[in-house]
Amino acid sequence: MTQEFINKFKAEQRNRGRLLINCPDQPGIIAAVSKFLFDHGANIMESSQYTTNPEGGNFFIRIEFECPELEFKKDELKAHFEEIAETFRMEWKLAPVSEVKRTAIFVSKELHCLHELLWEWQSGDLMTDIAVVISNHEEARPIVEALDIPFHYIPASKENRAEAEAEQLRLMEEYRIDVIVLARYMQILTSDFVAAHPYKIINIHHSFLPAFIGARPYDRAYQRGVKLIGATSHYVTDDLDEGPIIEQDIMRVDHRDQVEDLKKIGRSIERSVLARALKWHLEDRVLVHGNKTIVF
Amino acid sequence: MTQEFINKFKAEQRNRGRLLINCPDQPGIIAAVSKFLFDHGANIMESSQYTTNPEGGNFFIRIEFECPELEFKKDELKAHFEEIAETFRMEWKLAPVSEVKRTAIFVSKELHCLHELLWEWQSGDLMTDIAVVISNHEEARPIVEALDIPFHYIPASKENRAEAEAEQLRLMEEYRIDVIVLARYMQILTSDFVAAHPYKIINIHHSFLPAFIGARPYDRAYQRGVKLIGATSHYVTDDLDEGPIIEQDIMRVDHRDQVEDLKKIGRSIERSVLARALKWHLEDRVLVHGNKTIVF
Amino acid sequence: MTQEFINKFKAEQRNRGRLLINCPDQPGIIAAVSKFLFDHGANIMESSQYTTNPEGGNFFIRIEFECPELEFKKDELKAHFEEIAETFRMEWKLAPVSEVKRTAIFVSKELHCLHELLWEWQSGDLMTDIAVVISNHEEARPIVEALDIPFHYIPASKENRAEAEAEQLRLMEEYRIDVIVLARYMQILTSDFVAAHPYKIINIHHSFLPAFIGARPYDRAYQRGVKLIGATSHYVTDDLDEGPIIEQDIMRVDHRDQVEDLKKIGRSIERSVLARALKWHLEDRVLVHGNKTIVF
Amino acid sequence: MTQEFINKFKAEQRNRGRLLINCPDQPGIIAAVSKFLFDHGANIMESSQYTTNPEGGNFFIRIEFECPELEFKKDELKAHFEEIAETFRMEWKLAPVSEVKRTAIFVSKELHCLHELLWEWQSGDLMTDIAVVISNHEEARPIVEALDIPFHYIPASKENRAEAEAEQLRLMEEYRIDVIVLARYMQILTSDFVAAHPYKIINIHHSFLPAFIGARPYDRAYQRGVKLIGATSHYVTDDLDEGPIIEQDIMRVDHRDQVEDLKKIGRSIERSVLARALKWHLEDRVLVHGNKTIVF
Repeated sequence: MTQEFINKFKAEQRNRGRLLINCPDQPGIIAAVSKFLFDHGANIMESSQYTTNPEGGNFFIRIEFECPELEFKKDELKAHFEEIAETFRMEWKLAPVSEVKRTAIFVSKELHCLHELLWEWQSGDLMTDIAVVISNHEEARPIVEALDIPFHYIPASKENRAEAEAEQLRLMEEYRIDVIVLARYMQILTSDFVAAHPYKIINIHHSFLPAFIGARPYDRAYQRGVKLIGATSHYVTDDLDEGPIIEQDIMRVDHRDQVEDLKKIGRSIERSVLARALKWHLEDRVLVHGNKTIVF
Repeated sequence: MTQEFINKFKAEQRNRGRLLINCPDQPGIIAAVSKFLFDHGANIMESSQYTTNPEGGNFFIRIEFECPELEFKKDELKAHFEEIAETFRMEWKLAPVSEVKRTAIFVSKELHCLHELLWEWQSGDLMTDIAVVISNHEEARPIVEALDIPFHYIPASKENRAEAEAEQLRLMEEYRIDVIVLARYMQILTSDFVAAHPYKIINIHHSFLPAFIGARPYDRAYQRGVKLIGATSHYVTDDLDEGPIIEQDIMRVDHRDQVEDLKKIGRSIERSVLARALKWHLEDRVLVHGNKTIVF
Repeated sequence: MTQEFINKFKAEQRNRGRLLINCPDQPGIIAAVSKFLFDHGANIMESSQYTTNPEGGNFFIRIEFECPELEFKKDELKAHFEEIAETFRMEWKLAPVSEVKRTAIFVSKELHCLHELLWEWQSGDLMTDIAVVISNHEEARPIVEALDIPFHYIPASKENRAEAEAEQLRLMEEYRIDVIVLARYMQILTSDFVAAHPYKIINIHHSFLPAFIGARPYDRAYQRGVKLIGATSHYVTDDLDEGPIIEQDIMRVDHRDQVEDLKKIGRSIERSVLARALKWHLEDRVLVHGNKTIVF
Repeated sequence: MTQEFINKFKAEQRNRGRLLINCPDQPGIIAAVSKFLFDHGANIMESSQYTTNPEGGNFFIRIEFECPELEFKKDELKAHFEEIAETFRMEWKLAPVSEVKRTAIFVSKELHCLHELLWEWQSGDLMTDIAVVISNHEEARPIVEALDIPFHYIPASKENRAEAEAEQLRLMEEYRIDVIVLARYMQILTSDFVAAHPYKIINIHHSFLPAFIGARPYDRAYQRGVKLIGATSHYVTDDLDEGPIIEQDIMRVDHRDQVEDLKKIGRSIERSVLARALKWHLEDRVLVHGNKTIVF
């Protein structure tokens, strides 16, 4: 069923490409890029741009284009684009939309976020290959394997962290992973692991950051008597809960809600926030600028 | 105070221009437009684009650019753009951001929307010249005249409609009005009046359209027992409450809320929805496509 | 796992009872009821009350109380309460919280709402026995039977409606069903079936009622160009989509969203709105008054 | 106009009273209180109750009742209630609804919150006597005096704090103030001033607490790249921004919003959050429990 959705998507999108650019702002960038696409027979279908400030700022653009025979022309396009990229000192990426990203999900014992992602994926609403699920517990194995997704149990503790991460890194390579989702994984990753996947690891934190950074946010929200609780999805960097925020949302609570109620309500927010953040990442809508994101 | 905000804005934005385009989609539009701007020394700062569908669709774009000496070059820009516009059969508009629009507000006895707009305007959050307020009642006169805005009382009834509208049309010309806001005006305008201001008249309807079209929406919402009430801001067309929707919002209500409570809560939604819709219109963010809006 | 949650709940709540009352308002009701509970050793833990209007209105109350040995005393409590109930002409219900309701879910081919309910149920967030799932398609069978819930396939068409409903009614009795959830069932029930389950059938309609009553609401929302879409959960009565509304919610959409996008976004709203409505019903928080609900 | 609203309200509510209670939980409280009201000819119209936990918790109740001739009977009611209050060790308050509270507003140079409160008050949506406005600047004087509300300019600085507060305290007595609203007052009050008005001072903080406690929250929100900004209304205690939260709300922002935009959006949230918090306080809906509020 899911593979059907993916195949249908790939067929429909076979001529659709995406071009992402980040460079110092200067006049003429759009003129050059759009002339390039036009000269190569590509028609711009969607384009979002942002310049951080009028003078000496950074320029960001995300373009979706239709280009007949894209699969045969993509290498040529990339090769020819090099010249423009150098002229404007661009960081850039040009890729067919049909090259669906490969996702690894890391999970612990709390399965609600995993479950949401699997369900969205089965419904065809999350366009990715879920290539592997990794957990330090066995709870997730049945629902993962029932969907024919490889499941790897890797115990994680302070003692075996180096060993566990080595195994995880090996699996990321084996499964050719493009994006890692920490779906309530609850384990801290080392700097080395994070550095190996810059802005490729998406976490869900169960609070409205920067409120309640760190452990037990629902307990602390309860103690503080807040009237709204939230969740935050962000890229993982070396600083705990300090990476660029992709998406946040909240729900209303009141004095009758005990910690357990906050957790229940929170689960629902975590699920939708993480699913939205991942969806945007998969569609290349999220560009990182310093410690912030631009979401096109 | 308000004039200070406007003057400061005009000074800051003196080199900023906006280009709005609507045309049949075809390859090369962005290439041509961006080359044109680059050739004329303009740097694109913000650009939003939408194509209704991949084949044979409509193309919409809104560009903000910085162009030194814009006030002296704007006529030349417009003249030179004609050629591109013809090639691509464009409807288009090119204008300096510093040409602040002139607004007329029509109001009846319920003053909350008028009050909100005046307040946002005094705070510098609504960048427009409020050139005149027209009402079929005298209630609004004191707060309008206290701000040195001309106030015209024009009684409106079935009997004198032709006469009243003639006077209103005359005032629209006299005050060189760009946009008319019906801030709970509660009178139906004739087809002639509407036709004279295509997509220039913004109404606030006190329901979540298309629910509760027509009169007494809060009473009917109360009867139906809805759990959310809303407001809708839309361009006025010949069909009552059927024009293109610009913005909508809702708030939660419950069984304890009587009709009067719904009205109170609703006033707060109406105020913010109308203010947002007008702000977007003033910034040329709203493009009309058929009976829908594209809000960039 | 789920049965564990239910058993834990029953043990924790074994002394907790609920008393629901609906009667003509008059002085002394609360005094009489609270004295009754006190005299029987019950302590009021939570109480919500609503009077429709000060003079000659209706009085509604929902009380949760703790009463030691409730399972042995509940029959006595009910018997003794009769006298008060008659004095004040009450409709009432007194039941231990540990008597968990039995739910039937009716579903068609769209499984997102079913899936949400099953997941909330597995997580212990929906306290009910899901006794049976009925469908006019086979799609849902695997996920239902994987959870050891009986699944009945009953084809539904205009031709066999009488026969199909007879079978459905038989199953409702066989499984001793307390509440029926139409989780996107998409078939119209007869008056007889509805009459047999007054305010026991909960539907999810995929629009913000009363907007877009009837078929294809997302298509019509797309045509109208609304900026928010919604979903409504309501009790089923004889009038299509006109029953008392329990819960509604909305999400923001924009001009880029095609009908398929509205459906995707809508699925997420439908899921959460139906889950909330069912949860409130299971906790006896929803009282019906005319064609409206009071949600305590 | 405003006085008309207040007089109309007082006439309509002349028989309506409120009883607020906070005491250790034990069986029989509601029975005793409701019997008391019934015996004194009062009919309970609305009642909200909350018990912090089943065993050894705190009991809170807010009752609205109708009692004919309340103005003549209120002293008797209070006197007779003493006995029950002592039995159950209650903190309590019994007052006619028609005894409208007297409010003082403290404001600095940012007038949006003041403006909102004045407008809600003129519309009859905020039922209070605004007895005085105090500011350390002159900006607010014209709009305050235009409404015939006394305005006092009291410069505030580190040097004259003692003197200024002495004057403020004197004015609170002179105007017999029941509630003080810090509508973006931006000055820190001394412990003495706060201690003199326990849970009578309502502040609006321009962030979603506990995020961005302290100064310049919008700048810090911008730096952190949050996707939602908020505002919090809370009672003032000795700890800066740490008092019991009454209400919070948020709005969505994105990467295009600069600090100035966050401030504009934030103003709108601050206005509505503070207005709601004050309204609830005026209706005696807010009970304090430790460092949290119960909002009935």
